[in-house]
Amino acid sequence: MIIQLEKQISRSAKAKLDQALQAIKYSTTEVKTQFGSYLIGIGKSEFDIRTIGNLEGIRDIHRVSDAYKLVSTKWKIGKTNIDLGDGVSVGNGAFQIMAGPCSIESEEQVISVLEHLKENDIKVMRGGVYKPRSSPYSFRGLGIPGLEFWYKQAKAYGIKIVTEVMQVSQIEAMLPYVDIFQVGARNSQNFNLLDELGKVDKPVLLKRGISGTIDELLQAAEYIFSNGNEKIMLCERGIRSYESAYRNTLDLNAVTILKDKSHLPVIVDPSHGIGVRKYVSKMALAGVITGADGVIAEVHPIPEKAFSDGQQTLNYSEAEKLYRNIHKTRKLYQEL
Amino acid sequence: MIIQLEKQISRSAKAKLDQALQAIKYSTTEVKTQFGSYLIGIGKSEFDIRTIGNLEGIRDIHRVSDAYKLVSTKWKIGKTNIDLGDGVSVGNGAFQIMAGPCSIESEEQVISVLEHLKENDIKVMRGGVYKPRSSPYSFRGLGIPGLEFWYKQAKAYGIKIVTEVMQVSQIEAMLPYVDIFQVGARNSQNFNLLDELGKVDKPVLLKRGISGTIDELLQAAEYIFSNGNEKIMLCERGIRSYESAYRNTLDLNAVTILKDKSHLPVIVDPSHGIGVRKYVSKMALAGVITGADGVIAEVHPIPEKAFSDGQQTLNYSEAEKLYRNIHKTRKLYQEL
Amino acid sequence: MIIQLEKQISRSAKAKLDQALQAIKYSTTEVKTQFGSYLIGIGKSEFDIRTIGNLEGIRDIHRVSDAYKLVSTKWKIGKTNIDLGDGVSVGNGAFQIMAGPCSIESEEQVISVLEHLKENDIKVMRGGVYKPRSSPYSFRGLGIPGLEFWYKQAKAYGIKIVTEVMQVSQIEAMLPYVDIFQVGARNSQNFNLLDELGKVDKPVLLKRGISGTIDELLQAAEYIFSNGNEKIMLCERGIRSYESAYRNTLDLNAVTILKDKSHLPVIVDPSHGIGVRKYVSKMALAGVITGADGVIAEVHPIPEKAFSDGQQTLNYSEAEKLYRNIHKTRKLYQEL
Amino acid sequence: MIIQLEKQISRSAKAKLDQALQAIKYSTTEVKTQFGSYLIGIGKSEFDIRTIGNLEGIRDIHRVSDAYKLVSTKWKIGKTNIDLGDGVSVGNGAFQIMAGPCSIESEEQVISVLEHLKENDIKVMRGGVYKPRSSPYSFRGLGIPGLEFWYKQAKAYGIKIVTEVMQVSQIEAMLPYVDIFQVGARNSQNFNLLDELGKVDKPVLLKRGISGTIDELLQAAEYIFSNGNEKIMLCERGIRSYESAYRNTLDLNAVTILKDKSHLPVIVDPSHGIGVRKYVSKMALAGVITGADGVIAEVHPIPEKAFSDGQQTLNYSEAEKLYRNIHKTRKLYQEL
Repeated sequence: MIIQLEKQISRSAKAKLDQALQAIKYSTTEVKTQFGSYLIGIGKSEFDIRTIGNLEGIRDIHRVSDAYKLVSTKWKIGKTNIDLGDGVSVGNGAFQIMAGPCSIESEEQVISVLEHLKENDIKVMRGGVYKPRSSPYSFRGLGIPGLEFWYKQAKAYGIKIVTEVMQVSQIEAMLPYVDIFQVGARNSQNFNLLDELGKVDKPVLLKRGISGTIDELLQAAEYIFSNGNEKIMLCERGIRSYESAYRNTLDLNAVTILKDKSHLPVIVDPSHGIGVRKYVSKMALAGVITGADGVIAEVHPIPEKAFSDGQQTLNYSEAEKLYRNIHKTRKLYQEL
Repeated sequence: MIIQLEKQISRSAKAKLDQALQAIKYSTTEVKTQFGSYLIGIGKSEFDIRTIGNLEGIRDIHRVSDAYKLVSTKWKIGKTNIDLGDGVSVGNGAFQIMAGPCSIESEEQVISVLEHLKENDIKVMRGGVYKPRSSPYSFRGLGIPGLEFWYKQAKAYGIKIVTEVMQVSQIEAMLPYVDIFQVGARNSQNFNLLDELGKVDKPVLLKRGISGTIDELLQAAEYIFSNGNEKIMLCERGIRSYESAYRNTLDLNAVTILKDKSHLPVIVDPSHGIGVRKYVSKMALAGVITGADGVIAEVHPIPEKAFSDGQQTLNYSEAEKLYRNIHKTRKLYQEL
Repeated sequence: MIIQLEKQISRSAKAKLDQALQAIKYSTTEVKTQFGSYLIGIGKSEFDIRTIGNLEGIRDIHRVSDAYKLVSTKWKIGKTNIDLGDGVSVGNGAFQIMAGPCSIESEEQVISVLEHLKENDIKVMRGGVYKPRSSPYSFRGLGIPGLEFWYKQAKAYGIKIVTEVMQVSQIEAMLPYVDIFQVGARNSQNFNLLDELGKVDKPVLLKRGISGTIDELLQAAEYIFSNGNEKIMLCERGIRSYESAYRNTLDLNAVTILKDKSHLPVIVDPSHGIGVRKYVSKMALAGVITGADGVIAEVHPIPEKAFSDGQQTLNYSEAEKLYRNIHKTRKLYQEL
Repeated sequence: MIIQLEKQISRSAKAKLDQALQAIKYSTTEVKTQFGSYLIGIGKSEFDIRTIGNLEGIRDIHRVSDAYKLVSTKWKIGKTNIDLGDGVSVGNGAFQIMAGPCSIESEEQVISVLEHLKENDIKVMRGGVYKPRSSPYSFRGLGIPGLEFWYKQAKAYGIKIVTEVMQVSQIEAMLPYVDIFQVGARNSQNFNLLDELGKVDKPVLLKRGISGTIDELLQAAEYIFSNGNEKIMLCERGIRSYESAYRNTLDLNAVTILKDKSHLPVIVDPSHGIGVRKYVSKMALAGVITGADGVIAEVHPIPEKAFSDGQQTLNYSEAEKLYRNIHKTRKLYQEL
């Protein structure tokens, strides 16, 4: 059950509400976000929803039987639009392409990519300064110094930054430079990280776990929301399967379902999904036609020379063709 | 290695070729289809391909290192177009929608569906008269009597029939009535059935196994081709995964890859894929944008009353909207 | 619902029973096996089981809500013992090792293996004369001629034969030579083959599908049983997963659960399970401790020279050590 | 490549070694643990291993081509034994049962469990004070206060504590109370957490990811080792699969392979594996026969009343029977 509270609910009204919920043996969690106040009630007993809905200080009340509540479509009118600043937003009709390299490598590389994005009217640049690597002996990213020069340049170009945060202790240092915090697949159920990102007023791009269920992804988003941050994008990036002809099974079924179950924007990541350069673009378009609110793609000036394995990375001319096709496909999607 | 032979290769030329292949220790399989004569050579030794290619009676010779050979793009110029008769064809630019119920139930139902297809200019009707069922106590289809009345009506409407064959002994009885033999996911590696369908001059729609790999699907097609039948369509119908929010993981990655690896047409089946009525249409369109040559979809006059579980079945008005959107999406695909 | 009928139920008693079941809207399937007569009732309405149980000609009646009925533990007192003849049996306390090569290759090979089995007091020899192969260009087995010389020798040694049948049309020719028909993983839902094996009075070893569920395996067994053959062994042989460090995920969880859910004997196949020679024996023992009624293992005089890929095949001395350890582990299992 | 260094390697010897590795273009990572000094070299060029092995200050040098190095069997003579203090150890022949509730609930509960463990001569108690939960609205554990009263009692009973740490910031506060830090399946690739646990001189029980590969588990262990901590136990706890008859597919294949590939002790967790109370014990025994060095099992005075879902939890009498059977099975394992 989600109870939307009035912003200025009085103490006495709040006390009466608490009493009413105790009476029906519901445990409650209070949620305050950038945009609203909510009371989440969890319990099993049957009751007349109006007896609570009619209490003072309550804007609205909704039954939500799913394990996820605030991220569900069951209570919110319309879809969520996330404001990234400077007139850039995503969700509820607004579509964004996010592109850039796997890893931030040098100021020169950053400028080259920003130039490419600017020419193609792309508003968000992706890139990693903290890289999750299976092996401890692999390159793990440039860290804050890399983020600093990236930020300086990106700001000059008027382009937003999305980059992965891997642990709670990085949040504070990254905060001034980051426009969207990305949570990687391996951290999709790092609940402490999700809690802390819920306390920050910055958008979060939350990737589905390596073999995460749709339900787990929505509950992971619920962690962020219930800690106070409504600015969440869900990201399908491929699931692990037995098939070895590609990297991951990009699961467009999930995009379709997430768009139905949640009001949050959904981004599709074909680069880490299918993971094979020559197939990335088709999967991106398929993601758009299933209703994604954005595409995040790996682009590098010279994919073969990328720090990280560039097998899924497009070069500029491949990327430019993809951008054009994304726009055409998005246009069709809106007309269907 | 695939050696394309001249149709009229002389005995002596053939003998010389055999000798040359024995000399390099290659085992060979002769393949004669509706359209050509081939010699498949399997071996490991290194040799100069021209020494064999220049022999008499040989049209062309190609190295193919994949486990599948004749179904590969590595030897054939262009894509395969399969003629279904009466000007209907699929593949190499020709696109078909195939629609109809899970099970053939009655002559009345058949007529209703044919009427609906005719109105929407659909050329192929799907339907089952032999149904693979997990439980022996479930309805297993009307069999040949159902096929007979279906055929009579379909012929009157000028609409082609695609239906599942479950075992070798059914082929002969079904042959006069069927335009496309469908091989179901559970029979995807029923090698004896594939062998026998290779000896028939009728198109075959071959579904990927329940958790079949892309490679296994192509090798299953190779069984049919190498027995003499080039008229094969590959069908992606969803794979089994841990996700329970939908029925199967419709794997559009596979569509993209099959189109690249094979010259055969690829059909996408969103009904058995995602398996949830309200999500079927979006997945169908995503299949089209990844390059599928056709869509096969479940449609029933009253899905709720279908013999078989109709949870993934569209009613007529849903289907009509889907057909229109498929055509728009296909048009976009061709322009990209 | 399973109704066990008296062997000599009168026509009038049978008619009364049919009437009673029609009255509660249950559809029925009559089953006659080597050992008994059953009526399977499928329906949804509530009724007092005694009103039917008390009718004339009924031995017993049981509610079974699972999709599988006759193979369930819910109606049968005790476990099933399958008589293989000559005092050899499996299930309900009787344990068997089945060993032999992947493929029958030659009379010499057969004699060598039989000699080895005899020395180790193994009563059942495995081997393939029809081999399911992903590629049409691979060796597909010696067929009936191979089976003939194998049978002649096996009979001389007093050792039973278990071998795979791949299609309905092979059953008749194989029947005189085979002691146990094996249904391979790829045919686990080849329902026509299961139907026909239900009409034969020979034991069937039924393998779980490549990614078959436990429930599907039990329903596949139900096909055989409900066609008249109670002599079924269930076989766990590994499921397909994302893990590539071994061949298949031998699922011993399934052994434990199958032993609980069904009265049928359960055999474990570590060779096709983990599929790596040096790991096969440990997995075999683990299967025994989870309660398996038998182990089926690949053994070859010279594994490196086996026709089929011998990567999972033990040589004689490895196998002998395994047999001893199996017996010790089985002994422990019985004492626990 | 792993180079074992002398403890007292001189600066000049170290400089010469660095030079030699630079010459063959190997990048190096220095590792200092509780027990030794190592240099890990990563590179591709061919070289004569003796030219480096013969340098001053080097104890031994080993080629290790796997992605994991220090945790591999390829360099270490014998298996690792981890000392837990007070004569309790695990690995290299030493076997431990770890038992206790999912969640620490109260001092009373803790005393009850400790009493039960003492009676059964179990040396390690498991229990959670930080619980990873899919939903933010679920109970998340008693935290440090719970750990404090648990520690006080456990110390009195002379029983060791194993409990899950979920984030870097918890390590310091937990350190005085914990004998073994457990890393849960969801944190199996939380690389920052692994790094930090590598800097602590406390044993770590590292669980395989929800669908982690064997290789990823070993590389995760490499993170801990290469940061300085050799005291690592690997834990198989079931992988995610399509099968829904149980909770997770406890993968005993992995136990067998981990024991072969790594010198680290391997623990099997049947409670989170198969996850069904009546099947837990059999899977535990199967784990022992595949060579596990320990079993971790959920036990609770009244499973039905456990805070956390107690579906996989044994009561005391079930647990006592399991302990006895584990000892018998372990004894057999050692005799095989």
